[in-house]
Amino acid sequence: MDNIIFENNRLFILDQSKLPNEEIVIEMKSLEDCYDAILRLKVRGAPAIGIFAGYSLALFHGGNIEKAKEYLDSARPTAVNLTYATSRILKSYRGGKNPVEEAVAIHNEDKNTCFKISEYGLSLLKDGDGILTHCNAGALAASKYGTGLGPIILGTEKGYKFHIYCDETRPLLQGARLTSYELEKSGADVTLICDDMASYVMKKGLINAVLVGCDRVAANGDTANKIGTSGVAVLARYYGIPFYVLGPLSTVDFNTPDGDGIVIEERDADEIKNMYFEKPSALPQTKCLNPAFDVTDNSLITAIITDRGIARPPYEISLKELLK
Amino acid sequence: MDNIIFENNRLFILDQSKLPNEEIVIEMKSLEDCYDAILRLKVRGAPAIGIFAGYSLALFHGGNIEKAKEYLDSARPTAVNLTYATSRILKSYRGGKNPVEEAVAIHNEDKNTCFKISEYGLSLLKDGDGILTHCNAGALAASKYGTGLGPIILGTEKGYKFHIYCDETRPLLQGARLTSYELEKSGADVTLICDDMASYVMKKGLINAVLVGCDRVAANGDTANKIGTSGVAVLARYYGIPFYVLGPLSTVDFNTPDGDGIVIEERDADEIKNMYFEKPSALPQTKCLNPAFDVTDNSLITAIITDRGIARPPYEISLKELLK
Repeated sequence: MDNIIFENNRLFILDQSKLPNEEIVIEMKSLEDCYDAILRLKVRGAPAIGIFAGYSLALFHGGNIEKAKEYLDSARPTAVNLTYATSRILKSYRGGKNPVEEAVAIHNEDKNTCFKISEYGLSLLKDGDGILTHCNAGALAASKYGTGLGPIILGTEKGYKFHIYCDETRPLLQGARLTSYELEKSGADVTLICDDMASYVMKKGLINAVLVGCDRVAANGDTANKIGTSGVAVLARYYGIPFYVLGPLSTVDFNTPDGDGIVIEERDADEIKNMYFEKPSALPQTKCLNPAFDVTDNSLITAIITDRGIARPPYEISLKELLK
Repeated sequence: MDNIIFENNRLFILDQSKLPNEEIVIEMKSLEDCYDAILRLKVRGAPAIGIFAGYSLALFHGGNIEKAKEYLDSARPTAVNLTYATSRILKSYRGGKNPVEEAVAIHNEDKNTCFKISEYGLSLLKDGDGILTHCNAGALAASKYGTGLGPIILGTEKGYKFHIYCDETRPLLQGARLTSYELEKSGADVTLICDDMASYVMKKGLINAVLVGCDRVAANGDTANKIGTSGVAVLARYYGIPFYVLGPLSTVDFNTPDGDGIVIEERDADEIKNMYFEKPSALPQTKCLNPAFDVTDNSLITAIITDRGIARPPYEISLKELLK
């Protein structure tokens, strides 16, 4: 699935904010269009934002590239991939190179990273496997194949018949809205479940492996990912199912020794009680706790699958080995 | 919280189908009103349906009690408590007694059962405890106090300051719509979370005990309850938190040796993808698996709290002891 399309010097995106109910491809015609696309989550997922921002700045800087970069960076100030990409474009422009070529290079590097993760991941799966996923770490969030979903999409292309169970992933429903959507499009056999059904499908023997992405991995392998990931890991351990984390080696933060050093963002109650619902699910005065991420203990992770190879416990050692 | 009110020979209910957004008390004026209330889930929860059906038949049989019973029973054919209550009313009527007194007796018996469960449950908790609940086993589903929530409501009345975390309980959101609502009304300190946040609050040390209700308990203690219960039990075991099942001893089915004999109802995909949402969360062709219940293995249950006392492992022995 291509969510960012660069063709004949024109830039198109699949508007993710409208999925899964509407598939709308829109063309970017100005820097303002690009800014708006990032701000309104028409493009989302850290790698995808980086790729998109690269093309955006390269195509629409209008001669005043510093100002254009600053404007674009402000669309999502916390997105590290955004400023990483726009900085590369700026540098290439200043170096007298064609910035569009640099944007294409950023895109190709991500495709290559995703492909390698997918290949390593696929080596751990077998035809007919039942696989549980949580949240969305697919092509929509990156480029072709994605990370967490990469082995499924690559395997499906190669003729593997997987049976995929997607946690809907409350509160923002990325598993329902995005993962089930893109796996359906990839031709995989997909079944959507609610998050509280993961134990049921594992107990029934339907799951041979769990695949998830990662937002940040500590040096000891403790992994921050979408809220709910740690619960799935505990269930997998109880039912004796391998639990795999997938992501580029660049996601490993070697300066953070363990998960205790990872701060978890708590978000608004509105996302739990109101967003997506026709009517509020609880009283206005009812408090919510809404952590966006949780940390999965390294002892629950069977392997961490990166673009540079597969790390196994103890991760303090194996992750560093992959840097070499 | 009184969801079924019998006052001056008049029958009122709190319309649960409108909760938590509207609190509407409606008076039943005919057998048709009562039938409609059961059919449209204005009254729900097995014990509550039984209590309500008792009053309904006693007040509105109109002289042809057999026909009235048959009509009322057909409103929810699988609800065992419904036919149990209407059979008692019929028998009392035939025996020349006042059936309204029998209806009041059914109601009082349930209150008494719930109160005993609440007292036994409260004996296992302490002031200041953090408690996680899943689904709704409160007063709305039964009579005052309820079962799973009984110790919380009774304890709050006695001045205990609990901190309650309610799983919203997808797909039907009973935890959000009903449990957080009635605990809020009871004056307890309530925090609503999504089901996939249970691991997070446990890991953070916020939970000292898990309380859940039960739909059916096998002779060995394996417990069928709302989907998601078994996952919470696995998490509680991993984090070393006691996991308590609460319900009347009549919920134990001594003819079913273990959980393998409990058939799980699978419901429509529409409940996952469409119900409660403003727009569908996934593509029309995407399959869903929607089991209504799951079975929690007896090895994960710290104690089963009934109106006849507290059973501890091994349950094959301890549950039978409570019958004496």
